[in-house]
Amino acid sequence: MKVIVLLSGGIDSTVVLASALATGRECLAISFDYGQKHIIELEHARDIAKHYDVKHAIIQIGRNCFGNSSLTSTKKVPKNRTTEEIIHSQIPSTYVPARNTLFLAYAIGQAEIHNAQEIYAGPNILDRNAYPDCRPEFYQAFQQVATFATKQAVEGNPPRIVTPLIDLNKKEIVSEGKKLNIPFDLTFSCYDPTPEGKPCHQCDACILRAEALQSNFKFC
Amino acid sequence: MKVIVLLSGGIDSTVVLASALATGRECLAISFDYGQKHIIELEHARDIAKHYDVKHAIIQIGRNCFGNSSLTSTKKVPKNRTTEEIIHSQIPSTYVPARNTLFLAYAIGQAEIHNAQEIYAGPNILDRNAYPDCRPEFYQAFQQVATFATKQAVEGNPPRIVTPLIDLNKKEIVSEGKKLNIPFDLTFSCYDPTPEGKPCHQCDACILRAEALQSNFKFC
Repeated sequence: MKVIVLLSGGIDSTVVLASALATGRECLAISFDYGQKHIIELEHARDIAKHYDVKHAIIQIGRNCFGNSSLTSTKKVPKNRTTEEIIHSQIPSTYVPARNTLFLAYAIGQAEIHNAQEIYAGPNILDRNAYPDCRPEFYQAFQQVATFATKQAVEGNPPRIVTPLIDLNKKEIVSEGKKLNIPFDLTFSCYDPTPEGKPCHQCDACILRAEALQSNFKFC
Repeated sequence: MKVIVLLSGGIDSTVVLASALATGRECLAISFDYGQKHIIELEHARDIAKHYDVKHAIIQIGRNCFGNSSLTSTKKVPKNRTTEEIIHSQIPSTYVPARNTLFLAYAIGQAEIHNAQEIYAGPNILDRNAYPDCRPEFYQAFQQVATFATKQAVEGNPPRIVTPLIDLNKKEIVSEGKKLNIPFDLTFSCYDPTPEGKPCHQCDACILRAEALQSNFKFC
């Protein structure tokens, strides 16, 4: 079965890709250039797709569509928050308006073009408090859109949206990644990398990543 | 009240814009460059926005996202079909996969950025047979997405998707346009214009437009 995988280049979407491949799916990975500060994640996504020998496309999202999210503007990315602060946060400045709606909209178009039956995405349980479009009810609603929006839908064959990590936290996702033997060294999670493309080790994404990796790999 | 209006430059979306303005809404018009053959429609959209003195933004959609739709590829646009053939057609080659899903996805992002309360779109009853994403059930499903996708939604204030023409045919829409005194001469509907930007008078859009205008204006 052919499927579309939303691949950001981070751990979560790499686990999603690996799990789809592990069940014999033929995966087409798509990533998005939306003017993110961490545009280097696309190079990581490309390397991960190459690692798994899957086709990979990068889609350009219209510029100036995201207001003043700190991921796409000069606004500062929050730093040095504790895990508890991150998880129980109100919607942070790193929220990008309608981002996942756009990603899924492009994905159902790609599903139709490539005759893919499923769309794999990687929201997790930690994100659902802070990011409206990481909530299960959002994905359920988008499944309804997918059920009506396209020619595939009219033909009785709408794409199914699959979110295998939606009830897992970051540690559990890393644990899944270990079982699937994903190339952790190729993944990249930082929201605000240095000019050389190195992680800042202080943003929410770096902090959650480090904690999950440390608890699974017992570094030092 | 501030609202987003999807403005293509054709009659339908111009009537939608005029009707929103007639009820005192503050309109922000958005149009999309998606590599359409009839890219000249964007100049018409700009002129219509100028006519009404409303703000207007053109959003670039990622290229190569639409497979081989005849609106975006070298495939030929259907010509010289009868009105009956057009209305009762199966999905034609002018269908663009997930186009309205993408337009609405960008629109809910813009609604949030500009604190708009409504999104106006112009699907009509003639399109619903041929285009999956012009059906009422598609718009109802997308309303559910809008109800969960954004910060506005979390704050209990999701944008409402408004489709004032959804049960009207083209003649009725032109009749509405007459009442609202829209600038018909600024509108443009052709799918396959000449290199000089003139309408072909043979595509589905030209044929439906001509018929509706003739029945309302008694030309010749």
